[in-house]
Amino acid sequence: MSDNAGEYRIEHDSMGEVRVPAAAKWRAQTQRAVENFPISGQRIERAHIEALAQIKGAAATVNAELGVVDKDIAGAIAAAAAEVAEGRWDAEFPIDVFQTGSGTSSNMNANEVLATLATERLGRPDLTVHPNDHVNASQSSNDVFPSSIHIAATAAVTHDLIPALDHLAASLERKSAEFADVVKSGRTHLMDATPVTLGQEFGGYAAQVRYGVERLTSSLPRLAELPLGGTAVGTGINTPPGFSAAVIAEVARATGLPLTEARDHFEAQGARDGIVETSGQLRTIAVGLTKIANDLRWAASGPRTGLAEINLPDLQPGSSIMPGKVNPVIPEATLMVAAQVTGNDATVAAAGAAGNFELNVMLPVIAKNVLESIRLLANVSRLLADRTVDGITANRERAREYAESSPSVVTPLNKYIGYEEAAKVAKKSLAERRTIREVVLDGGYVERGDLTVEQLDEALDVLRMTRP
Amino acid sequence: MSDNAGEYRIEHDSMGEVRVPAAAKWRAQTQRAVENFPISGQRIERAHIEALAQIKGAAATVNAELGVVDKDIAGAIAAAAAEVAEGRWDAEFPIDVFQTGSGTSSNMNANEVLATLATERLGRPDLTVHPNDHVNASQSSNDVFPSSIHIAATAAVTHDLIPALDHLAASLERKSAEFADVVKSGRTHLMDATPVTLGQEFGGYAAQVRYGVERLTSSLPRLAELPLGGTAVGTGINTPPGFSAAVIAEVARATGLPLTEARDHFEAQGARDGIVETSGQLRTIAVGLTKIANDLRWAASGPRTGLAEINLPDLQPGSSIMPGKVNPVIPEATLMVAAQVTGNDATVAAAGAAGNFELNVMLPVIAKNVLESIRLLANVSRLLADRTVDGITANRERAREYAESSPSVVTPLNKYIGYEEAAKVAKKSLAERRTIREVVLDGGYVERGDLTVEQLDEALDVLRMTRP
Amino acid sequence: MSDNAGEYRIEHDSMGEVRVPAAAKWRAQTQRAVENFPISGQRIERAHIEALAQIKGAAATVNAELGVVDKDIAGAIAAAAAEVAEGRWDAEFPIDVFQTGSGTSSNMNANEVLATLATERLGRPDLTVHPNDHVNASQSSNDVFPSSIHIAATAAVTHDLIPALDHLAASLERKSAEFADVVKSGRTHLMDATPVTLGQEFGGYAAQVRYGVERLTSSLPRLAELPLGGTAVGTGINTPPGFSAAVIAEVARATGLPLTEARDHFEAQGARDGIVETSGQLRTIAVGLTKIANDLRWAASGPRTGLAEINLPDLQPGSSIMPGKVNPVIPEATLMVAAQVTGNDATVAAAGAAGNFELNVMLPVIAKNVLESIRLLANVSRLLADRTVDGITANRERAREYAESSPSVVTPLNKYIGYEEAAKVAKKSLAERRTIREVVLDGGYVERGDLTVEQLDEALDVLRMTRP
Amino acid sequence: MSDNAGEYRIEHDSMGEVRVPAAAKWRAQTQRAVENFPISGQRIERAHIEALAQIKGAAATVNAELGVVDKDIAGAIAAAAAEVAEGRWDAEFPIDVFQTGSGTSSNMNANEVLATLATERLGRPDLTVHPNDHVNASQSSNDVFPSSIHIAATAAVTHDLIPALDHLAASLERKSAEFADVVKSGRTHLMDATPVTLGQEFGGYAAQVRYGVERLTSSLPRLAELPLGGTAVGTGINTPPGFSAAVIAEVARATGLPLTEARDHFEAQGARDGIVETSGQLRTIAVGLTKIANDLRWAASGPRTGLAEINLPDLQPGSSIMPGKVNPVIPEATLMVAAQVTGNDATVAAAGAAGNFELNVMLPVIAKNVLESIRLLANVSRLLADRTVDGITANRERAREYAESSPSVVTPLNKYIGYEEAAKVAKKSLAERRTIREVVLDGGYVERGDLTVEQLDEALDVLRMTRP
Repeated sequence: MSDNAGEYRIEHDSMGEVRVPAAAKWRAQTQRAVENFPISGQRIERAHIEALAQIKGAAATVNAELGVVDKDIAGAIAAAAAEVAEGRWDAEFPIDVFQTGSGTSSNMNANEVLATLATERLGRPDLTVHPNDHVNASQSSNDVFPSSIHIAATAAVTHDLIPALDHLAASLERKSAEFADVVKSGRTHLMDATPVTLGQEFGGYAAQVRYGVERLTSSLPRLAELPLGGTAVGTGINTPPGFSAAVIAEVARATGLPLTEARDHFEAQGARDGIVETSGQLRTIAVGLTKIANDLRWAASGPRTGLAEINLPDLQPGSSIMPGKVNPVIPEATLMVAAQVTGNDATVAAAGAAGNFELNVMLPVIAKNVLESIRLLANVSRLLADRTVDGITANRERAREYAESSPSVVTPLNKYIGYEEAAKVAKKSLAERRTIREVVLDGGYVERGDLTVEQLDEALDVLRMTRP
Repeated sequence: MSDNAGEYRIEHDSMGEVRVPAAAKWRAQTQRAVENFPISGQRIERAHIEALAQIKGAAATVNAELGVVDKDIAGAIAAAAAEVAEGRWDAEFPIDVFQTGSGTSSNMNANEVLATLATERLGRPDLTVHPNDHVNASQSSNDVFPSSIHIAATAAVTHDLIPALDHLAASLERKSAEFADVVKSGRTHLMDATPVTLGQEFGGYAAQVRYGVERLTSSLPRLAELPLGGTAVGTGINTPPGFSAAVIAEVARATGLPLTEARDHFEAQGARDGIVETSGQLRTIAVGLTKIANDLRWAASGPRTGLAEINLPDLQPGSSIMPGKVNPVIPEATLMVAAQVTGNDATVAAAGAAGNFELNVMLPVIAKNVLESIRLLANVSRLLADRTVDGITANRERAREYAESSPSVVTPLNKYIGYEEAAKVAKKSLAERRTIREVVLDGGYVERGDLTVEQLDEALDVLRMTRP
Repeated sequence: MSDNAGEYRIEHDSMGEVRVPAAAKWRAQTQRAVENFPISGQRIERAHIEALAQIKGAAATVNAELGVVDKDIAGAIAAAAAEVAEGRWDAEFPIDVFQTGSGTSSNMNANEVLATLATERLGRPDLTVHPNDHVNASQSSNDVFPSSIHIAATAAVTHDLIPALDHLAASLERKSAEFADVVKSGRTHLMDATPVTLGQEFGGYAAQVRYGVERLTSSLPRLAELPLGGTAVGTGINTPPGFSAAVIAEVARATGLPLTEARDHFEAQGARDGIVETSGQLRTIAVGLTKIANDLRWAASGPRTGLAEINLPDLQPGSSIMPGKVNPVIPEATLMVAAQVTGNDATVAAAGAAGNFELNVMLPVIAKNVLESIRLLANVSRLLADRTVDGITANRERAREYAESSPSVVTPLNKYIGYEEAAKVAKKSLAERRTIREVVLDGGYVERGDLTVEQLDEALDVLRMTRP
Repeated sequence: MSDNAGEYRIEHDSMGEVRVPAAAKWRAQTQRAVENFPISGQRIERAHIEALAQIKGAAATVNAELGVVDKDIAGAIAAAAAEVAEGRWDAEFPIDVFQTGSGTSSNMNANEVLATLATERLGRPDLTVHPNDHVNASQSSNDVFPSSIHIAATAAVTHDLIPALDHLAASLERKSAEFADVVKSGRTHLMDATPVTLGQEFGGYAAQVRYGVERLTSSLPRLAELPLGGTAVGTGINTPPGFSAAVIAEVARATGLPLTEARDHFEAQGARDGIVETSGQLRTIAVGLTKIANDLRWAASGPRTGLAEINLPDLQPGSSIMPGKVNPVIPEATLMVAAQVTGNDATVAAAGAAGNFELNVMLPVIAKNVLESIRLLANVSRLLADRTVDGITANRERAREYAESSPSVVTPLNKYIGYEEAAKVAKKSLAERRTIREVVLDGGYVERGDLTVEQLDEALDVLRMTRP
């Protein structure tokens, strides 16, 4: 920006004067932070701004009720906060996510923008809204900022990720039903094993995804606990009685989320274990998606030189050099998301372990990583359902051929001829490229009375083998 | 070992003959595995052998009830399994933990040792117990081995780690009560903040540990789900009806653990997400212990040039060169355990993501890491309680001096003179090395009627500041 | 966007027709990818687009020389590529970074944009530049895209990170010289130890940073190796002799980077170990910065209740509630960058391990994470130097007081009175809050002739103790 | 152990008296540590004891030369140290690896055992060797213990891991030559691609392993730098001039390792970045082995329902239930080692970042993890070569069938008929299950003169396609 006097205005804070772009709604402390942290070019997440604004709006309302802040001022703050929560003023949050570890800069950014918007909205020369004394009244960055992370994460888990996982699980379950009678060779150690149905496999994937929802749900009570009310160091200094309970109730009402106040405010500000836990659950979901995406890729590998048991929908040309090639691009994107979530989780854990005494000061990087992980998992789960799983078709005949050719179909014979004789049959079948049935008949097992031909045929029914 | 013919005997399996040490209870497949995997020198965990034996014993009993195995043979297997579970035959489990990924080698090791012990116990020439056909009847490595990990981990979490964490939390809570009136300076960003009590800090640590128990408990239902009954590929091939339910009920009864059968047997063998989840919870507990151990170390730092707010018990001389030095050795060991658990968790996650189709074949490394993590956390939590926390004493006077000298005690004045005037007072106090009280009085705030002397003195009461 | 016919145009590719925004320079395959991957909202890095364009420009020139592409067409492509490399067309690269694992979509995006720009530039109805047949001639996504990552990373390490680390090391070295005579208490296990100078500490930090440069430099040869020339699967199919060597020479010339052709093209496409290695070095640098940032934060802790040996420059108000508080915000941002780099490295390693046969298809996520890590480390290293280290001042008197009060100054007496007697002196000094000198004199050691008063005083000279 | 008076003896140290098992060579401080740290049951690594003893022996010799320690005493220490280095007294090192973070307990363990052994060896009532004043003379745990880790790691990398990797690379190279003419289908995205030879793939694996050696070698100079000479805090207090240089020279001579003295002793004790770096290289090697092991497993998958391009040697029966099954057990063990090394590396990095001021006190856990990683990688690399790679055979006909059936063999036709026509040919070939050659001929491309039949046949020669 040019140095033209008209394009800047002078703001001040407790450390002195600062030049701020003339049109900016933010003020001195935001500007200092913009200049102090030219690190990543990345800002805090949209969902995070929304949660910050939700707290500020509710706090203004409660502060008015408790007589801490003038009612008109509070009303203006609450109205401005609603606009910020909706996303109308995102451009006024210019601070880098790599900033002060408490997120004080972003909290002050919210305070300053809301003070400006509320002042403008009031339009009264006698009423100037102050970022600290009004917008931040009864609060501290140290309880507000981590609370905003928990709210944003709880909202994203509840409203985005869990529905997306449910969506994916339902898609997998539909395929499980559709493929209930597609018998194929099981594979353990990547080697031919006894038969399974393709439907059983998809049922297993669906179960993995449903368990992911359980994991999130079981950790939610600790994620939904808010430090709010602890202010600077957990003691609640400068907070009027009833403030935090009322604010949390108001945010819970507005968002529909099961938010609660921290049972121990010193744990709640000194540690971020509740987010580390949820990050671990996200990582576990990523681990599950990795298995699913790899199975889908391998089952669809080919078309001529791979397993080719299933077909994934064609989405785009796969190669800039090999004409006609189509690749499993959504499973690949899923795998990349899973790798990212795993790394994000390592960041969250390292950051979570870095607290000292009354505050963990790795908050913005924790927020960035956990919110990004939730967002990526939610988006890719829906994509995986809609653009890959829903369109999968089975190569039934090839699958059955596999089932019948696996030497492990000898397994049901254990009870008739014992494990070691069965092993000889399997090896002979493989070496001579003959069927198990032929080898058993030639081997004299029926003749000797180990089993009847009927028992043999029932034992070698591959679809029958997919049940106990 | 020498090549002397008398010291070996010849065993055979489905691949041929193998020389086995004459006195060994194990047989051919164990011996092959001993020779195939000279990798780490580390065997599977004691708790893991115990769980394997518990399954084998219960399976024998149920196989007899279902008519699959002769009653005498089953009885002998069950009796032998009880001995193995107790730890009497650990030396007969010589296989390296880095082995086949399904743990088949260790499952066969159990089968072979039990077959030998049961045969010896029967002492009847007509009754030879077979490792596969009798001991492994109705089972597969692919359901037994992962089930044994889940049982061992569920047992260790329930019987070792949760009680150890409760023990540590109780110790911290006693100190929280003892230090309820030890006022000190809070620290945020490592910088002087408003006062807290030492008791509040210890209460926060106790809460972290108690939450750790909640985390484990909330994940336990998925850890306690057993793949048993799925046999080779999840279909339950070669398993008689009712087998797995009866075996699980028997193991649950014998161990007192809330074990259940997998809701989906394909998820239960293809994935190990339930263990990855618990590993993530262990990691979260490690993150919490890191914060606690670091706070204890720093609060006790000194004696002359550190914070020196508390004293840790002296356990051993601290330096081979600096006489009289004593170090916070148990918190350091705790931090090292936390780092190990974090790394173990990364291993478990990588291994958990590596499954393909009907089986995850990273089972032994998953078992090793998760069981080691539980064991380390349980042991170090007890040590931390008994040898460090229990003996902590507070330097009350020094702590109070800190509380009173922190410039942040100006914070309660915000409501009388506003944030910006309060900032001026704090800075002046610091620059001129005078108390906040003096600067306020000299600054004319009382004179001007911003607040009374009584209000000032109440506002500056540091113990009062530790409550809202 | 509206459905208005005028705002779209129809493009086609080998899979059929696609509607593309009318003004877009990209074409069908880019558009498919935009629609297929609405995952993160994040695009490939600026440095990555630059490197892609550099390859395309050089390839066009070499293709013309080798007679593969018409000279006019090649000239137009090269000119357009120069514009893309400069950053003029970044908005034309709209594809999400979570996309097909080979980066084919982004490679085709480059091909399409360059085809459009080159066609426009030629302005000849008879000459239409084709994305595959002209821009991508003699290339494949599978060699071009990973090559572009290596080029971008090599450039960023060489031109951004190494200079930034040198800058930080120089800043630390200036402080090391400035603080050469500031004697303070050493701290081991956080406990008082024998004296060091503050200059020695800053010299150690500078050494850590300089070693970081060594680490990067030692890994650079493998990072600077390019898969280019392997095309689809490493065999170099469809590449004319001399093509890759000439293109690499041209890019090396234009960028000044020590780029070389892969020694083994199958390693170079199947694996991404060279980037995993560099990511590990970045992680090691992050580990080093963590130590430095923590030391700076702790040494500056206080002002009243911490160590307060040094002062960091004030950059911004530190608290929204505690007036006058100033925090170590740049060291905190550094710690958050370090945590991010550690997580990014975990992602890169997981992705690097996921290759199969002729290609690793986790390329975009590898690129995103390694390029982000380099960028973050470079930016924060400069900030740490300029806004924190350069402005550090020492509290010399407090530091010397610490040095003199540490009980470990007894250490030089070992050689006169032995380790155990020295331990008694240290403990007595601490218990009675008297100086070591007093306790030695009172203890009769001089009287008994263990050492003279002169030897005692020389031994207790704290600055003397900072040298062997 | 029983309370029988005869089975214990009383030892004392600077903190008082301790009961020590009567026969133990260790003394009071070792005993305290045994009792203080009942955590993992795991001791420090054998290689670590060896390195500690090597330092102690060399230090005794140099101390004698410098007149610090009596020559007879020094000689006895050196002789005893040689025995300890050989492994004769490993049972005398009973302390848990999770102990004091400086390793002081293990350093004192070495001092005590050597003092006892040396005293016994001297057998002179007038000469009692003291653990601190003699064995530890001129040293501190803080320089000796980390030096011992660097020596042990440098030795293990140089003498074990690099030769093992060379061994594996040579094995892979032999197979690369053997399989030079085995043409197969390339696979990218797991989908059929243009042909490669099996020899090219094995050449790529060999290159990965050779690069691993380069990585280790390039980091070795920093690993081989020893803190020795810094003593307590890096200043070298209580060390005579020339001591550390002479000790390092002696250890270097005795071990043949390129050991050097730390360029900056404050970096060398405050940080452990040199080990973190090497751990990162080990992790990169693990990433490489993961790719190789997965490719081997998949290429050998089957025998009937997988890719089945190669056969791995049969090592042991693969299933306790499926007769005749044989699994890729050594590649699986390799994958588990890789996962363990990845986790160990996370532990090393977390521990490496935890240093404060003059010392990193996570040394034992760093040592355990890095030494274990080296050992595991060395052992499994040899196994992979000897028991898997050496015995691999190729299914040449199946591989060639794959090569010829891949639709991507259309790629060389791009230059004759263009990418889009080629794509049509490929799709038609796939849909109609006809060869590319047939579709081209039927499609009229030869008729129209796009290419001749000779050009077509040359273009479709799959072995020809494996070269540029």
